[in-house]
Amino acid sequence: MVYNYRMRFDVFSLFPEIFEPYLAISILKRAITHGLIEVHTHNIRDWAFDKHHMTDDTPYGGGGGMIMKPEPVFAAVEDVMGKPPTDPVILLCPQGEVLNQQIARDLAQHERIGIICGRYESFDERIRQHLATRVISIGDFVLTGGELPALMLMDAVGRIVPGVLGDAEATQEDSFAPDGLLEYPQYTKPAVFRDWEVPEILQGGNHVEQAKWKRQQSLIRTFEWRPDLLEKATLTDKDKKFLENYKKSLEEYNEQKPAS
Amino acid sequence: MVYNYRMRFDVFSLFPEIFEPYLAISILKRAITHGLIEVHTHNIRDWAFDKHHMTDDTPYGGGGGMIMKPEPVFAAVEDVMGKPPTDPVILLCPQGEVLNQQIARDLAQHERIGIICGRYESFDERIRQHLATRVISIGDFVLTGGELPALMLMDAVGRIVPGVLGDAEATQEDSFAPDGLLEYPQYTKPAVFRDWEVPEILQGGNHVEQAKWKRQQSLIRTFEWRPDLLEKATLTDKDKKFLENYKKSLEEYNEQKPAS
Repeated sequence: MVYNYRMRFDVFSLFPEIFEPYLAISILKRAITHGLIEVHTHNIRDWAFDKHHMTDDTPYGGGGGMIMKPEPVFAAVEDVMGKPPTDPVILLCPQGEVLNQQIARDLAQHERIGIICGRYESFDERIRQHLATRVISIGDFVLTGGELPALMLMDAVGRIVPGVLGDAEATQEDSFAPDGLLEYPQYTKPAVFRDWEVPEILQGGNHVEQAKWKRQQSLIRTFEWRPDLLEKATLTDKDKKFLENYKKSLEEYNEQKPAS
Repeated sequence: MVYNYRMRFDVFSLFPEIFEPYLAISILKRAITHGLIEVHTHNIRDWAFDKHHMTDDTPYGGGGGMIMKPEPVFAAVEDVMGKPPTDPVILLCPQGEVLNQQIARDLAQHERIGIICGRYESFDERIRQHLATRVISIGDFVLTGGELPALMLMDAVGRIVPGVLGDAEATQEDSFAPDGLLEYPQYTKPAVFRDWEVPEILQGGNHVEQAKWKRQQSLIRTFEWRPDLLEKATLTDKDKKFLENYKKSLEEYNEQKPAS
């Protein structure tokens, strides 16, 4: 089958009207205009066929909150994406694997992705077990619904789809580039703002020294703020040596402190 | 100073128009209507006083992308929140500490919070160093801008502000409740959907056994999917014993496998 887009998102939500305004403004807008990406939103309630169009009900075994019923969600997804769906179906919920750039890259390989957004307390477990192919969380915090996570997922995945970003916006030096380090400090004009000056090395023209400084700053920043990333980062022997020396100098500094 | 709201967000962005539609629909809408929360959006460009209203410029030391200039951001935040601001000023960027429920709870203690959203490649470092009081990341992935993260932050923080959620929506049993475990599997009607039945124990009326089952399922799920959360979770001796036995039974099962 030949698609005439590079990525199609089918989003299943009880509040599809949330999506339009952001899609009309973001990087996704240009991608949609250029036919690179399609976003189709579907209201789960349209597949709630009981008299009151109910999409939620009380939980078995008690406990507060309402639970998303399985029937409308299965019906919506299968109607739009096939029964069973042949493309990935993402369930957004706080119990899933936490989204990172690698997952976004994986997803960008597909031609079509379904995204189910929850509201209420939780999903009926059978949606997770028998309909979703992947459960993704945006992070360890509680939100009102899956709509913002879905927009975020589409933004993160969409910008990786070939052609969506122009050359000028090359993602090469973006945060979380493939080497997995945090970005070095960035500066722009003016060289002096209030009392604060741009580091001298960046104001000069020695590109070799600048590249070295940037790498070192990335290493220090990742070590100081997100040591967990350092474990998975791609480091050269030079990087490792630099970090060792950096740690040693910190230790020496700390040892001197009590004496002063 | 007495505020007549419980939480005021001041959001600084180049695309303030992104916020309205979501605010008009989410849990925040009711909170705003009831006077519990105020959201004020500010266009950073209104404080760019040069001829072309520039808010970005090329980076010192080369590299792709554009950098948010310091002057308009400082001017906007200080004009609205005081010079220097007396309330927290959050910078949303991928280099920050990763948002979690505990950070959301911390922030909900304040009466007013400023949120700076970036676009372009990065912020001038002086914004981070001398204006922001806290740098927060939504996760380890690259987005087009800080607007979706800001909405998410306001949603996560807003729902914790007293009075925003009704009793019926009590956050007690929400994912990432204070004990730090993942939620147990939830089910609602029908008891049998296709071939998949709700666990018998939940269909019965033994609340003591149900509570035990829920706790055990939370423990297993957190152990299987997010062992990193288990390290920081609040566990009773009974919980620890249960997990030990669970791990032991897994090991025994795995040892038996080659023989079968």
